[in-house]
Amino acid sequence: MTDSQTDGPAGRTPVELYEKVTAQGEKVRSLKAEKAPKADIEAAVKQLLQLKGDYKTVTGQDYKAGCPPSDAPAPQDNGPSPGEGEGEGEGEDVVDPWNVSTSSAKGVDYDKLIVRFGSSKIDQDLVDRIERVTGQRPHHFLRRGIFFSHRDMQQILDAYENKKSFYLYTGRGPSSEAMHVGHLIPFIFTKWLQDVFDVPLVIQMTDDEKYLWKDLSLEECHRYAMENAKDIIACGFDINKTFIFSDLDYMGISPGFYRNVVKIQKHVTFNQVKGIFGFTDSDCIGKISFPAIQAAPSFSTSFPHIFSNRKDVQCLIPCAIDQDPYFRMTRDVAPRIGYPKPALLHSTFFPALQGAQTKMSASDPNSSIFLTDTAKQIKNKINKHAFSGGKDTIEEHRKYGGNPDVDVSFMYLTFFLEDDERLEKIRQDYTSGALLTGELKKCLIETLQPMISAHQERRKLVTDETVLQFMTPRKLAFDY
Amino acid sequence: MTDSQTDGPAGRTPVELYEKVTAQGEKVRSLKAEKAPKADIEAAVKQLLQLKGDYKTVTGQDYKAGCPPSDAPAPQDNGPSPGEGEGEGEGEDVVDPWNVSTSSAKGVDYDKLIVRFGSSKIDQDLVDRIERVTGQRPHHFLRRGIFFSHRDMQQILDAYENKKSFYLYTGRGPSSEAMHVGHLIPFIFTKWLQDVFDVPLVIQMTDDEKYLWKDLSLEECHRYAMENAKDIIACGFDINKTFIFSDLDYMGISPGFYRNVVKIQKHVTFNQVKGIFGFTDSDCIGKISFPAIQAAPSFSTSFPHIFSNRKDVQCLIPCAIDQDPYFRMTRDVAPRIGYPKPALLHSTFFPALQGAQTKMSASDPNSSIFLTDTAKQIKNKINKHAFSGGKDTIEEHRKYGGNPDVDVSFMYLTFFLEDDERLEKIRQDYTSGALLTGELKKCLIETLQPMISAHQERRKLVTDETVLQFMTPRKLAFDY
Repeated sequence: MTDSQTDGPAGRTPVELYEKVTAQGEKVRSLKAEKAPKADIEAAVKQLLQLKGDYKTVTGQDYKAGCPPSDAPAPQDNGPSPGEGEGEGEGEDVVDPWNVSTSSAKGVDYDKLIVRFGSSKIDQDLVDRIERVTGQRPHHFLRRGIFFSHRDMQQILDAYENKKSFYLYTGRGPSSEAMHVGHLIPFIFTKWLQDVFDVPLVIQMTDDEKYLWKDLSLEECHRYAMENAKDIIACGFDINKTFIFSDLDYMGISPGFYRNVVKIQKHVTFNQVKGIFGFTDSDCIGKISFPAIQAAPSFSTSFPHIFSNRKDVQCLIPCAIDQDPYFRMTRDVAPRIGYPKPALLHSTFFPALQGAQTKMSASDPNSSIFLTDTAKQIKNKINKHAFSGGKDTIEEHRKYGGNPDVDVSFMYLTFFLEDDERLEKIRQDYTSGALLTGELKKCLIETLQPMISAHQERRKLVTDETVLQFMTPRKLAFDY
Repeated sequence: MTDSQTDGPAGRTPVELYEKVTAQGEKVRSLKAEKAPKADIEAAVKQLLQLKGDYKTVTGQDYKAGCPPSDAPAPQDNGPSPGEGEGEGEGEDVVDPWNVSTSSAKGVDYDKLIVRFGSSKIDQDLVDRIERVTGQRPHHFLRRGIFFSHRDMQQILDAYENKKSFYLYTGRGPSSEAMHVGHLIPFIFTKWLQDVFDVPLVIQMTDDEKYLWKDLSLEECHRYAMENAKDIIACGFDINKTFIFSDLDYMGISPGFYRNVVKIQKHVTFNQVKGIFGFTDSDCIGKISFPAIQAAPSFSTSFPHIFSNRKDVQCLIPCAIDQDPYFRMTRDVAPRIGYPKPALLHSTFFPALQGAQTKMSASDPNSSIFLTDTAKQIKNKINKHAFSGGKDTIEEHRKYGGNPDVDVSFMYLTFFLEDDERLEKIRQDYTSGALLTGELKKCLIETLQPMISAHQERRKLVTDETVLQFMTPRKLAFDY
């Protein structure tokens, strides 16, 4: 597998280099422990010094074990990290699977994130190519840069053009019964990908992860998985092409899943997950080994009922960018256990009603629009809580115009208003001051109310029986 | 559950105290991180200081994070451990799941080990009580102190007398096709326990562990598990009362196993497994989380097909003492996840032919008698390799006598010669010099040849079909 993003020595991000140095240091230690030939040790040490040099060049700092660069989550029990206090003036965004924060009202700087994570931008050329290959107009999430970053998507398209199929994998951590509109983003997009590419889809419900991270019982996490599955199914997935699974259930009924988990776990050290995820010695061993469980569905042998024993079916993962650390780890392990690296499509974050500085929280009912909200609740929440980019008085607004770039109602419209022309007109009118904040909010309310109500109608039709059908390991409508 | 060995503050071993201090330190850190009420933090700190005081009293040294007391395996990447160089004159024995070593030709000092591990000696009173309760003459492994240590065996007997049943759990790490006679010890004894107590038995084949620790493929480890199962079945286990499972298979077919694994993994930190097993940051995350997989069969809910949904059936684990660290961890976790602590019966180690200083190695064909050895190989190995406690010349031997305490042939006879009177006569005659080394070796050869040959005959009758029957999850001949 070629992988221009991570294999070339140039253009590496601090996090990648940090992980490489850590891994190489470990290699040197184990060569010494094994009393390997002197020449091997010397070669490994030479490479280690080279990598440390690269690290210093890129970060301006010496590599220090246990202290990842400031964009990677720092282990909690370390002292001040080397970067602290030396700041670049504007604090860096924090993006990992458990924390997303930025000091900018416009939200995270995604162009910088692409550089830091070492992924590739989804540019107009790629969007055009997707259109050519599928013969379908690209989804507005692609047209508007909501899915903004990728890894190896060109490779997926090359193979697809050569009649070589792939499969889709996405997931959800079921931490509560209630899902909000932001949670739908990966599923709405994945449904579109399933429709235009006509490929199998697997959806992982990480109820085990939520049990490990939250103060919840196994039974609660499993119940949330089943409830959330109903909302996911209500997005319209084809039952003949989609397999949904709860980790707690699937581990106990699959002949292939645990084997892949163990394979991955053999090839990832604590040093590596410490560097990637910021785990500490005080974390439970369940958290420490969990990344392998999120990684395993990236390999087709985890689903023998779908792919028979084919191990070469490549995986494409649409997900929010905060999940990328899991799949950077997965892509690192893949060639070492004889599997293709999964490709990725990354989305931006869906902003909280209060503003784009933070990711929403399913535990704060006012932080977003929930899929269970009534038309009235939707109206009240937006009018009361949606952060506005408008001016303080109507007079000022008319005179100076509003700022759509920080206005949450406008941001939500970019996600859910499909009509490009109307969206552009709203943007212009709001910027000029012709459109008032109240009127902008009204547009959003009138977009979300029917959308949520239609979702609720579809969800009502999803019975427990339907959920069980989606969650039964079985052959899908594809021959492998 | 009462647990006189670990719950009382007095009589704690250095290792136990070390683990308690580590766990308490962690509790303090997490209370601080959660910004818990000041009074809670102060109470936790007070207890931490108390435990550190106890540690210093017992070990004479200050507690130092990351440096377990000298009897626990020390993390590899630490500097000299605090105990080093201060020695007690006679180096301490090393006993953990991967290393057993002693400087004494008589083998490990088991009385010291009981004190260090905080277990209880199997004394004559307990042996007598087992005889009363079962109405059967105790197995010679009990009469001769081969099973020498226990945890909570009195409790098992109390419950048994009150018609409350228990189940047996033992296991094997299948690292190669060939098993040696020493590997049979726990199985011979477990078969006796099954016969006299008439209880269910589960046998875990840790093929996943061997994959994680050794340079072997998953397929090899799984094949070794199936081959080793044949030798285990040949010990005579009742198919209606025995369930054998490979971790790699059972994880993927059991609705209860993974749930218990995750529960345990949530309640054990990296600090704890570092203290107990000596894992380091360079170990793979599979090793780090594996102890939960060896722990899980200690809980009856891991086998819903046998115990329905009963979670209160206590477990009794016969095993070699080097496996105790796994079950100390298990007993610590059990009450926190609502399960009874498993009871244990510990055996001494079976010595290598070359002497009692080391545990045998399945990879060195001359280190023991293998279950595949021919009568001729048995004879040659014993004559050539069995370490002798005799004198250099016949004249000296006749005059001064031999030393059975360091003589491997004599040790092997204590394991396999059932006739107490004959064994005692051999001991006396060898000590007096009346019995020569060649004659002692002949006794052993004549004991092992028919035993191994009978085993080989029984093993031949074990078909792949029989193995599959033993390994099929099913109801056993007990009502739960």
